[in-house]
Parts: sequence; structure tokens; C-alpha cells
Amino acid sequence: MTDTYKAILIIGDGLGDRPIAELGGKTPLEAANKPNTDRLAAEGECGLMDPIAPGVRAGSDTSHLAILGYDPYKYYTGRGPFEAAGIGMDVKRGDISFRCNFSTVDDSMMIIDRRAGRITEGTSQLAAAVNNMQIGDVTAIFKESVAHRGALVLRGPGLGALVSDTDPHEEGAPVHKCAPLDPNDAAAAKTANAVNEFVKRSYEILKSHPVNIARKEKGLNPANIILPRGAGLAPDLRKFDDLNEVTSACVAETGLIKGVAKYVGMNIVDVPGANGGLDSDVTAIGRAILDSLKSHSFILCNVKGGDVAGHDNQPKAKVAMIERMDQMIGLLLDIVGTDTYIILTADHSTPCAVMDHSGDPVPIAFWGPGVRTDNCKSFGERPVLGGGIGRIRGTDIMKIITNLMGVQEKFGA
Amino acid sequence: MTDTYKAILIIGDGLGDRPIAELGGKTPLEAANKPNTDRLAAEGECGLMDPIAPGVRAGSDTSHLAILGYDPYKYYTGRGPFEAAGIGMDVKRGDISFRCNFSTVDDSMMIIDRRAGRITEGTSQLAAAVNNMQIGDVTAIFKESVAHRGALVLRGPGLGALVSDTDPHEEGAPVHKCAPLDPNDAAAAKTANAVNEFVKRSYEILKSHPVNIARKEKGLNPANIILPRGAGLAPDLRKFDDLNEVTSACVAETGLIKGVAKYVGMNIVDVPGANGGLDSDVTAIGRAILDSLKSHSFILCNVKGGDVAGHDNQPKAKVAMIERMDQMIGLLLDIVGTDTYIILTADHSTPCAVMDHSGDPVPIAFWGPGVRTDNCKSFGERPVLGGGIGRIRGTDIMKIITNLMGVQEKFGA
Repeated sequence: MTDTYKAILIIGDGLGDRPIAELGGKTPLEAANKPNTDRLAAEGECGLMDPIAPGVRAGSDTSHLAILGYDPYKYYTGRGPFEAAGIGMDVKRGDISFRCNFSTVDDSMMIIDRRAGRITEGTSQLAAAVNNMQIGDVTAIFKESVAHRGALVLRGPGLGALVSDTDPHEEGAPVHKCAPLDPNDAAAAKTANAVNEFVKRSYEILKSHPVNIARKEKGLNPANIILPRGAGLAPDLRKFDDLNEVTSACVAETGLIKGVAKYVGMNIVDVPGANGGLDSDVTAIGRAILDSLKSHSFILCNVKGGDVAGHDNQPKAKVAMIERMDQMIGLLLDIVGTDTYIILTADHSTPCAVMDHSGDPVPIAFWGPGVRTDNCKSFGERPVLGGGIGRIRGTDIMKIITNLMGVQEKFGA
Repeated sequence: MTDTYKAILIIGDGLGDRPIAELGGKTPLEAANKPNTDRLAAEGECGLMDPIAPGVRAGSDTSHLAILGYDPYKYYTGRGPFEAAGIGMDVKRGDISFRCNFSTVDDSMMIIDRRAGRITEGTSQLAAAVNNMQIGDVTAIFKESVAHRGALVLRGPGLGALVSDTDPHEEGAPVHKCAPLDPNDAAAAKTANAVNEFVKRSYEILKSHPVNIARKEKGLNPANIILPRGAGLAPDLRKFDDLNEVTSACVAETGLIKGVAKYVGMNIVDVPGANGGLDSDVTAIGRAILDSLKSHSFILCNVKGGDVAGHDNQPKAKVAMIERMDQMIGLLLDIVGTDTYIILTADHSTPCAVMDHSGDPVPIAFWGPGVRTDNCKSFGERPVLGGGIGRIRGTDIMKIITNLMGVQEKFGA
């Protein structure tokens, strides 16, 4: 450790919201009782942050890419590569990666259940049965994720990512053929052929697999086909630590965020009890941050619960999650020294009324030595208005942090 | 003079700062007694300005390029060309320019004194002895600057700028060989060869030069070698006056700023007594602005002192410099007519605690006829929050000024 200053960047997933009648016209952040979070705002410098650009609805992956300093318009070609990296697959430059579902189809390839009865057991045996499939000069690498989910990586010469999904996204519909988005795109056509062959063979292999025979005997929908979607070409990203002159670790709950972080070379810290839900062990997350801070100068932390409550339109659950996060922030404030910056923001808004990500900006606070403390007294969408940060974008954040940490090279003389 | 409106853009070099305990938690701008400066803010429209982008640590050269409307990411290749132009050298497109030091080496080319005893006299004779050196088809043009400084311009076919420095930046180290950053870059290799030959011959010529023999007799370190660094390819910039429909002059104290201004075709006004220090004759600068305004519609003024105090961590000296600048602004306010805009900002922050340029934004005020006066009452990092300008970038400034002046062409119909 040669760095003088350290920084903890806390992303409350989907924390931004809109005024909610049930909360007296406040947002969950404005309604929550969160003394530690508000201390960050009162002692720090506040503003609004657009993860991508004003009004743009960000995904968690594109937003985290932007927040970490990588322009998603330049580097994001699809969710697949980050999802695959997030479950520990070794994605290489040039690979085409997909998110997948185990699904249930009938003999005519009609979808009976997109999620194969939300299967939870036996998927690793099913995955092993289709993994390392050779399709001409293309190798199909498959790994299961949680429940009915998994990821497919196609590796071979001359593959393109611009192909359609096989998942029709509704039951009672036929499995879609993967096709190149542009019929003249030979690389995409090669990928589509490999995908279609993988899907066909997955059905042939899985329909009579012992795991599925046992499921049928129990009256459960068999996981008898794998449906890839969200194709993406693995982008060539510069390592985060090299770009920012830090030693970094990521403390996150979901595979997607861990995948983005792993992809840019951050050390991934797994936290037992950090389950991504409303009952996640936030104290364990806080301890993992403090522990990682001993050997790293920069910690990225994502806490997922607020987003879950937003997707489920549960304003009070969102308030409660913000209050639980506040305890974690209190733990950090008790322990960190005067050499540590804490930056708090969200990766996007997930308004309860929308039940999905929205393009509304999110609050941000920079706390630590030398920041230009402003008049903002609490952390929320409207309390940060008029703060010293004004309105910035996700790609500005690491520049501001490395400036405060004193590790950024000067541009010019 | 056919222009209706005029504008004076005053750049307080390094004027931005962070809260300082010694100043009661205020920044130097916030702590200073500066009624004229505050009048600009109270009667004008205020906000924050990022010279390059939020958090980005700007040099004075990159910042001035941006403020004058030239994207430094596109046009800035190194400090050399602006430094050379600043001391009156005629830098042409395609030239490779370097900043140089006169240094002292021993017979084995080890650095004894990087600044040759901070030599102040005789450098023009030394420069004349190495100037116009022919190295193959490359001409090496050298000119002395103040003290131990100088600039080298290499002119010839097929030269590249991507080469390393010869100055090891420490005493007791050997002179570095100039080398191409990429070994396959033939243009850079040609430049590197010319630089190394220039350095070698400079030693051969200077070691026995009468100026150095006299220095040695006085016990002073001889200026017996010239060490180029900061190579830059002269960018092809459109003339400032053509871009902005103004007739411009630059009143500045340092060679670097004069160099940028000269490079974009501004008239350079030299001001006796404007020495770039904390005791610079700011009244003389103010008079030079007013005098230049008779024959120009746009004046760029840079006052250096605040930056010096920041680099030296002298908060009270920075406050005093701001108060001296305030007298200059008072002089301008007494004299200029209702046809004149005054715009006040800084080229970057040089926080006393950092003792170098930082990426913190700086305040900006636009004063003059028709501006949308806001609620800001004084000029400082936090007093301008909530002002009408919000948070803008350096490259926005000339658009806002030429819009106010009424000289900007409409984009569209």
C-alpha cells in the first residue's frame, strides 16, 4: 500500500425514486430515518448524477461501467459477457457471450415454462452435460448460474455478436431461431448457426437426462432446453487499477455487478450472508469493506435490496432497506480514518411506481478530507439540489474521486 | 473597430481552492475582501466551471486551450509548442517542439545541477552558439527563455512527437537518451536521433563557451548542456479571431499562456512590471487591458499570482493576491462602458493543501449588459452555487461570450 488516500464508493442499487403518496409525497430516500447517510451529505459535497446521461434508462451493468469510467456507448455490446464473467466464467476477448434460461418445451418446441419450474437443484449436472460442446470450429462453454439461469460463451474464429434472441419471452410461443440482425453480416450468421445448433443439441441431450426424468416423476417441469439471449462481444477494457492508479476490490451481491468488476480486473470479495435481498446481511457487507480496505485503496460496494423493493413496488420496504444500509454506513463512519473518502450514490432510479429502472437522476455525495462542504443537510433526490456537485454523469465520478485521492495525473502543464 | 460589444476575460491562474482551516473553513476567494470582484458576481450571472471536465486535473495550457474553445483532447500533444511560441519562436505546422533546461553535467554525462545554478545571464549567447544546428535534413532552432529555461524546435520532414524526455528530473542521474515511445514509430525514431545529436553537440559546443568559462572562474555551475523534454507536434488550430468574429489581444504574464495565445493568433501585449509573482503590478495589467480595448474587441487576461501562492501553500498570500486583483477589477469597472462584458474565472484550482493543480471546479461570473442576474452575491466556490450558469465546461465559455457579444453565427435557421 503506497497510496495515501483511500476511497469507498457505495452504490445503492436502484435507490433513486419519485415522490410517493404513501410516503407523504416524499421519495424513499427522503422519507427514511438515516442519520449516518445524512451525515455524509451534511459534511460532504452533494449533487445529482445521471448514470449515462439525463433521462437515459440505465441498466445496472451499463451504469456500473459508466461509474467505473468506461463509456458504455463505446464498450457495452450486450449483457452476456458481464453475466458470464459474473458467474466465474473466463471470458476472453473475441468471445460471444449470452445470458441463458433453462426452459421447458414440448416436442414441437413450444415454450411451456420459460423458467423450467424455477428449477433450483440439478442444474450443475445439466450444465455439465452440455458444456464444452464442439460445433464445427466453435466451442460452446456453458455454466449454470442461480436457479434457472446460466451463461453461454461461444469461442472460435470469425464470430459476431449482432444476433437475435432465441427466448420468445412468453409461454405458448415457439422457440425463436437465432438470426443475424443484418443478413449480410457473415460473422453474425456464423454465431446464429452455432447458437441454433447448441439449442437443438441441448434439447436432445437434456430431454432424457436423469435430472429431468426425476423432475417429471415429481410432477415438475423438466429443464429440457437452454435458450440464449443478450449476445455480447467481450470488449477490450483497460484494467481499472491501471486507469485509476488504485488497488481495487469489489464487494457486491449479484453476479452481474461482480461480473462487471471482475471484467475490469477488480478483486472480487464474496460476503457470506450478502444475498441481494431485503434481508441481506449489511453488517457483513460493511465488515467486508473495512477488511478489504486494509489491502486495497479503492472499494466498490453494491447493495442490491433497494432495487428489489422498487421492482416490487414496495415503498416501505425500500425505506426499510435504506435504513438498514444506514447502519452499514454508520459502521464505516465509526471506523474509517481521516485518510478515507466515502462516496454514496445509486446506479439508477427504480421508482416504485415504475417497477423498473427509470432515467431519473440519482443523488450523490462526496465525503472526506478537503471536500467543499455545501449547504445540503440530508441525502435525497431533492435535498441535494443546490449542492456543490451540481449535475454530473457517471463517467465523471472516478475523475472526481482520483482527483480527491491525489492519484490522478495532470493533463497538461 | 466595427464590433458593437467588447469583452474582457480575466483568468485568475489557479484561483480555485478547498476549504482551509487557517481561513476559518473558507477558501481564499471566500475569505478575501474583494468588493469589486463581488460586484461582478452580484450584478452578473454565476456558476461553476470545469476547465476540461469534472474532476480532471488541468494544466494551464490545456485549460487555456479549452477556455479559448479548442478541445485539448483533440489538439494538445505536449507543452513544447506553446512554450516555444510563448517566447516568440515561430512554430510551424509539423514542427516538433520541446521545453528545455540549461543544465550542468560532468564528463560522464551525469547531472550535477538540472538548472545550471539557475543561470540568469549569458543564456542568449549560449543559445546563439547552438541555434540553427543542421542535423541531416532536420534544423534545430533553439531560443533561451527566462533563467535556465529555453525551447527547441525541430523542423524537417517525417518527424514524430511521441518520444521520451532527456531530462532525468533528478540530480546524480545520467542524461536520458531520447527514444521513441513505440519502437516501430519511424517518425519518432527520427526525432529521437535528432534530439540525441542536439544534446551531444550542445555539450561539445557549450562546455568551452566563454560564458561558461567565466562562470566556472566565479565558482558557478556551467550551463554546459541543453536537455529537451515535453515533445509536442504543433497542432493546426484555426485562428481565434476567425472562429469567434473578434479582434483579440492577450495580456498575460507567463510564457506558457502567451504561447497558447500567440499560437491561436492573438496579439500579445507585454506589460512592464507584470512579473507573474505575488508583487506583480496589477494596476499596470489593468491599464494594459483598457489600452488594448481601444483597438481590440476581446481581451484575454491571465494573472498568475494566485497559482504561485497555491503551489507554495500560502493561503494568506493567496487571499492578498485576490485582494490585489480586486483593485485591478475596480479599475476596469471604473472605466469600461456599458458596451463591455467582463468575465471572471480561473483556469483551474491550485488548492493550498494540494500544492498543485487539482480537478476541483472553479467559479465563473459573466458581467455586462443583458446577463440574467441571479441570486449570487459574491464570487467564490460556494457563493456561486445555485447561480444561473450552473456547471459548465471550459469549451462552453467562448460560445457564451460570443453569444452575449452578438457576434456568433446562428447554427441553423
